Amino acid sequence: MLGKHYLLNLYGCPFYLLNDERFLIDLMENAAVASGATVVETIYKKFDPQGATVLTLLEESHISIHTWPETGEAAVDIFTCGDANPKIGCDIIILQLKCANSEFQYIER
Amino acid sequence: MLGKHYLLNLYGCPFYLLNDERFLIDLMENAAVASGATVVETIYKKFDPQGATVLTLLEESHISIHTWPETGEAAVDIFTCGDANPKIGCDIIILQLKCANSEFQYIER
Repeated sequence: MLGKHYLLNLYGCPFYLLNDERFLIDLMENAAVASGATVVETIYKKFDPQGATVLTLLEESHISIHTWPETGEAAVDIFTCGDANPKIGCDIIILQLKCANSEFQYIER
Repeated sequence: MLGKHYLLNLYGCPFYLLNDERFLIDLMENAAVASGATVVETIYKKFDPQGATVLTLLEESHISIHTWPETGEAAVDIFTCGDANPKIGCDIIILQLKCANSEFQYIER
């Protein structure tokens, strides 16, 4: 097995959270650490007029978020190899983004 | 729909390609452009004693590769929103990495 990949689609999240790139950077890095992963580097882009992408390179693979504040939607991936438990990170992200609904897919690769 | 997500698991790739981070950076960026996407920024990490991760932030989401040269394996994600066609990028990556076998999963998010 190459690793554990969690794909989250989040709906009904507040605009102000999905449009706050600093909040999203902290959220990705904190979710990674809570999952037992080690952050190497994070990059991001804030889009005009709204929305953001954050990508965090982990020792164990990566975590990413893309947001559409105008519709309250976000797409999150947590992909880890080794002993990390990305389900913990998923739960943190769902909670912190205050989403009304979420879809969740787990793929062993 | 949030976007098109292609997950590729590649097997039987040559060690020297999977361990060449410069080759992998070019491959990710070229595959993104060929898919009709626009590269914003790429980060990478070369692992010791072998292996690499490359993450490329796109205007349309992201593309990533994680490699395990010791077993000839790699995991690639291409996630795009909008009009990009990531299937083209997948075909380029499979060809350029000279893999013996590949598994392919397409998810509409």
